[in-house]
Amino acid sequence: MLTDRPVERWLREDVGHRDVTNDVPGETTGRLVAREVGVVAGVDAAVAVFEYLGVAAEPVVTAGDRVEAGDAILRVEGPAREVLRGERVAVNVAGHASGVATATRRAVDAAREVSDDVAVAATRKTTPGLRGIEKRAVAAGGGDTHRLDLSGMVMVKDNHVAELGLEGAIERFRERKSFATKLEVEVETPADAPRAAAAGADIVLFDNLPPAAVRRGVDALPDGVLAETSGGIRLDDVPDYAATGVDVISMGWLTHSAPALDLSFRTG
Amino acid sequence: MLTDRPVERWLREDVGHRDVTNDVPGETTGRLVAREVGVVAGVDAAVAVFEYLGVAAEPVVTAGDRVEAGDAILRVEGPAREVLRGERVAVNVAGHASGVATATRRAVDAAREVSDDVAVAATRKTTPGLRGIEKRAVAAGGGDTHRLDLSGMVMVKDNHVAELGLEGAIERFRERKSFATKLEVEVETPADAPRAAAAGADIVLFDNLPPAAVRRGVDALPDGVLAETSGGIRLDDVPDYAATGVDVISMGWLTHSAPALDLSFRTG
Amino acid sequence: MLTDRPVERWLREDVGHRDVTNDVPGETTGRLVAREVGVVAGVDAAVAVFEYLGVAAEPVVTAGDRVEAGDAILRVEGPAREVLRGERVAVNVAGHASGVATATRRAVDAAREVSDDVAVAATRKTTPGLRGIEKRAVAAGGGDTHRLDLSGMVMVKDNHVAELGLEGAIERFRERKSFATKLEVEVETPADAPRAAAAGADIVLFDNLPPAAVRRGVDALPDGVLAETSGGIRLDDVPDYAATGVDVISMGWLTHSAPALDLSFRTG
Amino acid sequence: MLTDRPVERWLREDVGHRDVTNDVPGETTGRLVAREVGVVAGVDAAVAVFEYLGVAAEPVVTAGDRVEAGDAILRVEGPAREVLRGERVAVNVAGHASGVATATRRAVDAAREVSDDVAVAATRKTTPGLRGIEKRAVAAGGGDTHRLDLSGMVMVKDNHVAELGLEGAIERFRERKSFATKLEVEVETPADAPRAAAAGADIVLFDNLPPAAVRRGVDALPDGVLAETSGGIRLDDVPDYAATGVDVISMGWLTHSAPALDLSFRTG
Amino acid sequence: MLTDRPVERWLREDVGHRDVTNDVPGETTGRLVAREVGVVAGVDAAVAVFEYLGVAAEPVVTAGDRVEAGDAILRVEGPAREVLRGERVAVNVAGHASGVATATRRAVDAAREVSDDVAVAATRKTTPGLRGIEKRAVAAGGGDTHRLDLSGMVMVKDNHVAELGLEGAIERFRERKSFATKLEVEVETPADAPRAAAAGADIVLFDNLPPAAVRRGVDALPDGVLAETSGGIRLDDVPDYAATGVDVISMGWLTHSAPALDLSFRTG
Amino acid sequence: MLTDRPVERWLREDVGHRDVTNDVPGETTGRLVAREVGVVAGVDAAVAVFEYLGVAAEPVVTAGDRVEAGDAILRVEGPAREVLRGERVAVNVAGHASGVATATRRAVDAAREVSDDVAVAATRKTTPGLRGIEKRAVAAGGGDTHRLDLSGMVMVKDNHVAELGLEGAIERFRERKSFATKLEVEVETPADAPRAAAAGADIVLFDNLPPAAVRRGVDALPDGVLAETSGGIRLDDVPDYAATGVDVISMGWLTHSAPALDLSFRTG
Repeated sequence: MLTDRPVERWLREDVGHRDVTNDVPGETTGRLVAREVGVVAGVDAAVAVFEYLGVAAEPVVTAGDRVEAGDAILRVEGPAREVLRGERVAVNVAGHASGVATATRRAVDAAREVSDDVAVAATRKTTPGLRGIEKRAVAAGGGDTHRLDLSGMVMVKDNHVAELGLEGAIERFRERKSFATKLEVEVETPADAPRAAAAGADIVLFDNLPPAAVRRGVDALPDGVLAETSGGIRLDDVPDYAATGVDVISMGWLTHSAPALDLSFRTG
Repeated sequence: MLTDRPVERWLREDVGHRDVTNDVPGETTGRLVAREVGVVAGVDAAVAVFEYLGVAAEPVVTAGDRVEAGDAILRVEGPAREVLRGERVAVNVAGHASGVATATRRAVDAAREVSDDVAVAATRKTTPGLRGIEKRAVAAGGGDTHRLDLSGMVMVKDNHVAELGLEGAIERFRERKSFATKLEVEVETPADAPRAAAAGADIVLFDNLPPAAVRRGVDALPDGVLAETSGGIRLDDVPDYAATGVDVISMGWLTHSAPALDLSFRTG
Repeated sequence: MLTDRPVERWLREDVGHRDVTNDVPGETTGRLVAREVGVVAGVDAAVAVFEYLGVAAEPVVTAGDRVEAGDAILRVEGPAREVLRGERVAVNVAGHASGVATATRRAVDAAREVSDDVAVAATRKTTPGLRGIEKRAVAAGGGDTHRLDLSGMVMVKDNHVAELGLEGAIERFRERKSFATKLEVEVETPADAPRAAAAGADIVLFDNLPPAAVRRGVDALPDGVLAETSGGIRLDDVPDYAATGVDVISMGWLTHSAPALDLSFRTG
Repeated sequence: MLTDRPVERWLREDVGHRDVTNDVPGETTGRLVAREVGVVAGVDAAVAVFEYLGVAAEPVVTAGDRVEAGDAILRVEGPAREVLRGERVAVNVAGHASGVATATRRAVDAAREVSDDVAVAATRKTTPGLRGIEKRAVAAGGGDTHRLDLSGMVMVKDNHVAELGLEGAIERFRERKSFATKLEVEVETPADAPRAAAAGADIVLFDNLPPAAVRRGVDALPDGVLAETSGGIRLDDVPDYAATGVDVISMGWLTHSAPALDLSFRTG
Repeated sequence: MLTDRPVERWLREDVGHRDVTNDVPGETTGRLVAREVGVVAGVDAAVAVFEYLGVAAEPVVTAGDRVEAGDAILRVEGPAREVLRGERVAVNVAGHASGVATATRRAVDAAREVSDDVAVAATRKTTPGLRGIEKRAVAAGGGDTHRLDLSGMVMVKDNHVAELGLEGAIERFRERKSFATKLEVEVETPADAPRAAAAGADIVLFDNLPPAAVRRGVDALPDGVLAETSGGIRLDDVPDYAATGVDVISMGWLTHSAPALDLSFRTG
Repeated sequence: MLTDRPVERWLREDVGHRDVTNDVPGETTGRLVAREVGVVAGVDAAVAVFEYLGVAAEPVVTAGDRVEAGDAILRVEGPAREVLRGERVAVNVAGHASGVATATRRAVDAAREVSDDVAVAATRKTTPGLRGIEKRAVAAGGGDTHRLDLSGMVMVKDNHVAELGLEGAIERFRERKSFATKLEVEVETPADAPRAAAAGADIVLFDNLPPAAVRRGVDALPDGVLAETSGGIRLDDVPDYAATGVDVISMGWLTHSAPALDLSFRTG
């Protein structure tokens, strides 16, 4: 697991130089428990927090599992001092990731009411420092991670088009990109969609367009080219966009605004 | 400024090994703009992102300022390549911090409807890696940061009381703590409040109690001892708790569940 | 630029605790010079070394430029002490990256003798710690970076096929991967190539097969599916593989075995 | 072992944010195997890669051992997911280090044809980030590590001599250096060698001189002062320089241009 | 324990790139032993050094224990190579921390001759990089840690008073500080002490004043406000200040000038 | 300069998450001033602290200079907020390093009373995290840094001799060490000194022997082999050891027990 490395910084920022109250002798057990219904993620990060402190930690559920209020997520056993030191950070990281997974599941469920195929995807609008954890939480919630970083896909944006023209911009980045990487093109009007496809786009992005316009764009695309839409889409907007026939609905909301899932830690 | 150090990790997780699309020549200007009304925070972190990349960045507003949709927050000028590399991370961190500040301002405003004196405070339920930024965002929103880490105040919790008794636990930690540090005691019933005060508590915490019980506890406290309440308190609960006469209402919600403020970055 | 961050570690490992001989006063100028013909890369990393030390550094050439013996690559000006401290590390990193770029250019030229279209690509067989620098050096030499890390493309390998069958393995990873990511499938015989394509492969990899077998596999693939070959291919093997009609020839040799380009640093 | 610390960075650059294909359940075994004859080094670094991931790793050979194609170097056992995550980085680092050790052994063997005493040494021309691993690989191949960093020996260079004169420069650094450190002096002509020795050099360096000139310089040195030669020396040049009577032949080629030893990883 | 993280840097700076003499096979045992009488601290850091190297380490004493010459502090068992690599750093860190603890105990004992209540406290004048270890060593010696960092208490200093007036400065920081944090005010004359108390100081600091002036200031303070004194106080000055009735005597000397406790490491 | 990198950690440990009192607007000047006579070192580290914070810093003196009470060491100019944040850490590091330099100068002066040639050297008994700074401070005080880390010289210790015999141990490490590195041998009796020299020692170490025994050992050594003595030597012991004719007196006391030089920072 690679998730355990930020753990040191997380613990340092929470503990400080000297912690008087948790300096208790002996061994103890404890468990991380859900206090409301939701979808779990970030368990591996919570495990890493405890293992960093020399506390054994055993997940009770798997990322993507649904939990009810009162369900245990993780059981731990080790020196009381270290269990107490880890609990707050473990709750914080797993609560945050589970909030993202839960929000994603809700968005996916809303999309499924309308379409069997449309994917709900995250964006690069993630919380600084938590990119990997949030992307994996989105996957746990049934969403698509989208590109993981700038290097993961080539995206032709409006500023490129303004400078080089639509076909010119696509041509430029097709030459520079790796064969291993897809090319996505952001279009400003439905009419640009087939032009982008003809010029070599693997995916066409309809950003900040109303559902009706997205639908027109989707209808204009040839087979084999994917359609994505994004732009301030929240949970309530999902059904309308899902009905457009688009392949992917991308939502920064999943990662930048999902409320944490309420978790608590209980010793003994 | 010390906020610029995580910047390296934030940028690395967003950019990856090779970024084709932002590799453009020349200089450019740009600005970070609010797309909705709110309270700004995290501007120093956004500045640090750009300065790390060799881009000059000048704040237009100060942490704690109220902005309307369309208001500029930050102006930048530098190599186009670096401006484009920094914009997403800058939006992410300032949007997150401003979301915390905005939520805090709302909670403070709700409290002020009922009481001139009650403080709204954050907790240790912060997003891992962002403790300092979130605490400063709470201050920008008019809230109280509460203790910054475990070392910042000695907190006698229910597990200590279970082991040593109320007076015994307070006695133990009074001996161990520094003269520079306050002592807070969590009580389970209003009746324990005056006992805790008599034993030397600087602050008494009523955790997970209904407003009526908190009020009884507050009334039982002598002058000079502060009363704090906490436990799953959300925005709607603030007025009821503010009316209890408590000195401090602490809300994990401010930092773990505040939606981001909608910001965007515009070049040119 | 993100390339400047390992600089601190590179300098520390070269300088140690106390450096007596470079502790000279005054300012100086200097230049990084090629001592043999080749293709330049890693100039940004060399710049970062000097800038870290407070030395101004101005590139004379651009990554991908061809240089002759005696050509200057970089000019620097600053405190003599710091110029002298940086020169060895700057030579080491730029010499290494330029060696990769030069080897890539040779392989590309060899391929072009036979085919106008075939790409020469790097692999994940890079020098630990230098992934990004080497991938960018390959691009500077006219090669294709291939996927930058494990997350950059989904690769179905022989062990997956052994466990799940060819179609089963492809099915499994198509479900799990993001829409933004391509799917490549490694096949063991030419006959498996059309099966992989039919099951949804974007790219088919012929690993450790002789050119004749690769040619049969390429011929069996439908339009729109790319063919890649790899497996211990060295410079002398490039023409034979280029003649197979394959789209991509991948060579670990570019990054793990290219000799450094001979550079030196001259003060004054 | 101190070699395990870069492991985190090496893995992060290879894995990225989310790795779909290696996410398999269960335990597995595997082994690192040589695919060509050579001398092994870097086994401790490969062990560290696996141990970082919680995979048990047992070396089969010792640094400096000669292996044939097919020989196992390392056996591992652990969670399949982690074994698969570690294999590429382990192959990369051990293949690189073994390439350095193999090249060193070849150079030492070439020198032994001519002289029983002459040492083959590395230089500071190492791959950035891998100084310690490469220096230990040189030792494994039977070479001399030379100074490990700038602090490890005081070297009087031509620029010092230009400024202070030969005797003046030696005098200056003899005063400043520790008693624990040797003093080496670079000379431009054979005639300068006895002057450098008389002024207090422990070692005299003949840099970029032809073998005949080196021989004259060596002959002019008194007993107890070591002679070293360097400057673009490749494998084919070793016998000629070994025949000059010099004590040490230093070759940047050992570390900056040695091809990797071909290793592979096999599960099961 | 969080103390084990600097261990990597401590070992790297002591070992360097290649350590020839400690490269011995087999297992060994050893112990850390006091060579003079003193108070022990830093044992957890010494344990962390050995555990980092894979050596089992078991403390024989607890932080704060008094040891005589010859007493064992820590027993270790593990690979001889790693035991030898760790011993110097373990001695250095535990010797330093125990020196701080021993100095603190002496100062506390000196104060107890005169007063049962007065505390001896550390300051922020700690050795860079060792803040937490030194503060915990002070606690082990019976001292008070004082605030752990700038965030741990609000201190109104003479420059604030110069700018805003005594009451103005106190007012300003009372508004800005958290309810969880105490407010200390530095006064220049005894007469300012009751003014500071009236304006809301929790603690009044008499800095660089002679004992007689401190006594006048202490006498002028109301109940419930603590009095602290500081300013170049050394061991010999403690009784005079303890006799003033002050609550806290703060001494930078405890951390910046305490001689190390003489420890040695013995194998076998 | 490489000394500026720990600065980030030093500042973080001193400032914490939020610093209320130093958050003042405007620019200011300030200076670091000696409050007692001594020898200055660590000025470059203090400069690095301020430069990290964006504060211009200009040294007034050079490492090794003698200062009187009241003399300025460093002048700074920059944002008041950052000047105030840096002052404590700057004082701490420069005070510590200057304490080491001052102690070294005293020991050197004591040695000079008796001998013109004997060197006073530091050991590896340095404060963890400050090896380089302390070694350079020793040099500033006129001392010899001795080996900088374990890799800097090969030291044959009593445990090696116990295992392999004196000549056997020397033989073993002569083979393994680089030609660039000296070999020192620790002897237990004066009679072993000439044996060690005959076997190839460059330096012989008399550890924990009284001056008379050291003198006998020194007298028994041939020309060209250096003699060093060490073992709990304090300032008062220096003349007796200097009179033995030994070349080097090594003192851990210089780095582990030197009191800090009293410095203060004054704004305006």
